[in-house]
Amino acid sequence: MSLHGNLLIGRSRIATEAGFKAVDPAADAQIEPAFAQATPAHVDQACALAWAAFDGFREAAPEDRARLLEKIAENIVAIGDELLDRAGAETGLPRARLEGERGRTVGQLRLFASVLRNGDWLGARIDPALPERKPMARADLRLRNIPVGPVAVFGASNFPLAFSVAGGDTASALAAGCPVVVKVHSAHPGTSELVGEAIAAAVAELGFHEGVFSMLSGTQREFGQALVADWRIKAVGFTGSRGGGQALIRIAQSRPEPIPVYAEMSSINPVILLPAALSARAEALGTAFVGSLTMGAGQFCTNPGLILAVDGPDLERFIAAASSALANVAPITMLTPGICQAYRTGVAALAGHEKVTTVARVAEVGGNKGAGALFAVTAADFLSDHALGAEVFGSSSVIIRCPDLGVLKEVLEHLEGQLTATVHLDEGDHGVAATLLPTLERRAGRILANGWPTGVEVCHAMVHGGPFPATSDPRSTSVGSLAIDRFLRPVCYQDIPDALLPAALKRDNPLGLNRRVDGVVQKA
Amino acid sequence: MSLHGNLLIGRSRIATEAGFKAVDPAADAQIEPAFAQATPAHVDQACALAWAAFDGFREAAPEDRARLLEKIAENIVAIGDELLDRAGAETGLPRARLEGERGRTVGQLRLFASVLRNGDWLGARIDPALPERKPMARADLRLRNIPVGPVAVFGASNFPLAFSVAGGDTASALAAGCPVVVKVHSAHPGTSELVGEAIAAAVAELGFHEGVFSMLSGTQREFGQALVADWRIKAVGFTGSRGGGQALIRIAQSRPEPIPVYAEMSSINPVILLPAALSARAEALGTAFVGSLTMGAGQFCTNPGLILAVDGPDLERFIAAASSALANVAPITMLTPGICQAYRTGVAALAGHEKVTTVARVAEVGGNKGAGALFAVTAADFLSDHALGAEVFGSSSVIIRCPDLGVLKEVLEHLEGQLTATVHLDEGDHGVAATLLPTLERRAGRILANGWPTGVEVCHAMVHGGPFPATSDPRSTSVGSLAIDRFLRPVCYQDIPDALLPAALKRDNPLGLNRRVDGVVQKA
Repeated sequence: MSLHGNLLIGRSRIATEAGFKAVDPAADAQIEPAFAQATPAHVDQACALAWAAFDGFREAAPEDRARLLEKIAENIVAIGDELLDRAGAETGLPRARLEGERGRTVGQLRLFASVLRNGDWLGARIDPALPERKPMARADLRLRNIPVGPVAVFGASNFPLAFSVAGGDTASALAAGCPVVVKVHSAHPGTSELVGEAIAAAVAELGFHEGVFSMLSGTQREFGQALVADWRIKAVGFTGSRGGGQALIRIAQSRPEPIPVYAEMSSINPVILLPAALSARAEALGTAFVGSLTMGAGQFCTNPGLILAVDGPDLERFIAAASSALANVAPITMLTPGICQAYRTGVAALAGHEKVTTVARVAEVGGNKGAGALFAVTAADFLSDHALGAEVFGSSSVIIRCPDLGVLKEVLEHLEGQLTATVHLDEGDHGVAATLLPTLERRAGRILANGWPTGVEVCHAMVHGGPFPATSDPRSTSVGSLAIDRFLRPVCYQDIPDALLPAALKRDNPLGLNRRVDGVVQKA
Repeated sequence: MSLHGNLLIGRSRIATEAGFKAVDPAADAQIEPAFAQATPAHVDQACALAWAAFDGFREAAPEDRARLLEKIAENIVAIGDELLDRAGAETGLPRARLEGERGRTVGQLRLFASVLRNGDWLGARIDPALPERKPMARADLRLRNIPVGPVAVFGASNFPLAFSVAGGDTASALAAGCPVVVKVHSAHPGTSELVGEAIAAAVAELGFHEGVFSMLSGTQREFGQALVADWRIKAVGFTGSRGGGQALIRIAQSRPEPIPVYAEMSSINPVILLPAALSARAEALGTAFVGSLTMGAGQFCTNPGLILAVDGPDLERFIAAASSALANVAPITMLTPGICQAYRTGVAALAGHEKVTTVARVAEVGGNKGAGALFAVTAADFLSDHALGAEVFGSSSVIIRCPDLGVLKEVLEHLEGQLTATVHLDEGDHGVAATLLPTLERRAGRILANGWPTGVEVCHAMVHGGPFPATSDPRSTSVGSLAIDRFLRPVCYQDIPDALLPAALKRDNPLGLNRRVDGVVQKA
């Protein structure tokens, strides 16, 4: 199949004049073909279709939307090598990683199919009428969740499959019953087209309204802004830079009807090495840390960008092990020339900072490659310069030398919100760990013991979220089955005749749901 | 007990110089004593205490917080007549209404106590480790909800008990584990002091940190703005005007760490009279409508401010019945001189609008009294002037004469977001009602059949919320047990040793919770 480079607006494929091409970061060269540049007029078309599709799509039987998600997964797998080849060319990511990411992508589509069939996402609640109650009768009150409306999804650069066109936000939005309009990430438009066509085909095969899915590409910002501003869009999913996320939030909030933007932006994922653990296995920790730091050239939202420990000989052992491990890391092609450039700028700024010591740094090489850099700074100096806590996207990490555990806690208290916080601990550390946990809970969405933050399980208990600026809405997660909640809102039905009630709330429970009756869940 | 007029900052009672007095709207005269004017320095004190209290309060056993809520309820009831007398003097609300509202207030405190004991609010999820899984082992992943942090609650004018100092937001925030700083509504500072002291006493009696509750009064906006801007405040509850809500939202969003504002602002609560129902009982509907419209001088967020029906003889019968019912309504003292003035201005604007017909209007009387006003306008004229859809707080309603049901639906599509939408229907109307329901679901948080929107049941299936501008966040409700969710966020624990896990997630389930294991709820 050759790529057409067109916009996908429902069933239509629309070519435009001014286009752009993907760049192969390994070859530092453009790849054919050219892709279309969407305009606000295309946004209007896509949103009109999405709006037309919404009422029907949201009332489709959950089983039918579950089949849609499964069909999308099937179609993505059926693309075969072409998808992996193109994604590899556009991102520089190795084959095995892309195979794994494809597995995660179809796995999360299937997870949301199971969520739909389980039905608990509807949040059905029933408080039956109490006609005899004194002094006033109680009406019959029933509640279910409905989808918020069409959703705009901005593809992420660093997960061209799992957090892009058919990624987490698209899967959870479609599961919730929200039509989706994707803004393609310009770094992988060919990958996006292949996946977008797989979705569009599934929509058509299952007989859903064409407006359930559209996809717009382009490098000019105007159309992405128009998408967030469009009155028919009711929520936005975004993964990217802090500046980019905040720009979208400003647009969303200045609409006549403001809408939520779920932006995942910036996190440095502190890792705390507690004394007993550090003493017991400083070398092993140092080596494992570098494995997490440099995996995929560090291009993960959960990359460990900060190490906190009490200064002393054990920390030196850790640093020595990490330094020698880092020396053996081969530079890896980064996702885009722009990301590589930003990484180098960030590393250079740390290396040139007067309070920062460069602990280990792999020599820079050409070809958009990033390797690894490790720095150290005292807690006092870290606390005195806010900029040292800024994310450097890539394999760059700063070790904070703390004089004692009290200062270590103080540093944690001063950190901005994080996706994750990790503690390495032995039994001898439990006491101090217990005193740190409240701080970590306030600062992060996920707390790990004796592991590394990279690698995010797609499951029911996952939280990939956290206080600002890790995300714009810590009440939500972008990974895992709980992510469906971000695209739902509750509606109450008072004394509505059974014939008119939605299936989720009808007297005889045709969907076989677990429902909360007078506050207590009754199993179907 | 005589009122002291001081600020309540934890255990401290702080007098200030420049103060203000409450106004008895019936007498149009100030009442003693003077109340303190808080400054940003007082905000800082209260927030520092709230922050100090937070970690302990949130980890208190749910049973202990349940007892706190029950003790607050008990203390409020124990104030006795003094509370009802003072509230009556400050608001003009009649005794029976205030007794009912007190009942609702203590009822919702007790409801949240039951929510705490039920434990489902913790949202416990467990995906156990799968060490043998290929190609990668799965970590042990556990999720629970934690409270977001200290909450600022802005008392509402129209529910001096149920949506003020110990109202819905305070009850749900305390239940969630969030310390509360209340900004007193200046219209009922004495009522607020009595209730605030009841809360503070309960906090002390049960041995909680004094920072769990503080209360600040004043008429200068500066301190309320400082409260929303304070970094230790993590969410805001507000019920009031659209302008007031949006001002707080702007402050909250421009903080270094933006926070959610749950603002309930503006709703005109459309009531649709479908043909068969209107034909069958136009007169009864007209009379009952006026009962809902004029109850409590119309000072409810759910007051029916818009009637939609197909024009014709049946609608004339409804209008005639409503007009004669309205003629018999005695003017009622409104909550404040300002509210009465705004009501009169709003009614005068409608009466003077060239496209609007005045159907019935009770003559204006002195003494801050409001009565009732009923207007009519064609659907075409309504659609052509956005201002006709603005809320007039008080007993004012506009009848939209629609040429047919298609236009009626068009009007609904053009309405802003609403707290409620009501349909009067007979079996013969079911077909058309089914076609309207998707629109109503998109426009409102609660849909009623054959009832009136005033009167909000405090229960598990209630939604008192809706799309902007009804509220700033339609994913949430301010009334009912689901309201606890607005002050919670999820945290994931990965491979955390059992000894360090919170009780909600420990292996042996010491709280006896229903927990979702691998996606399926397992009853305790």
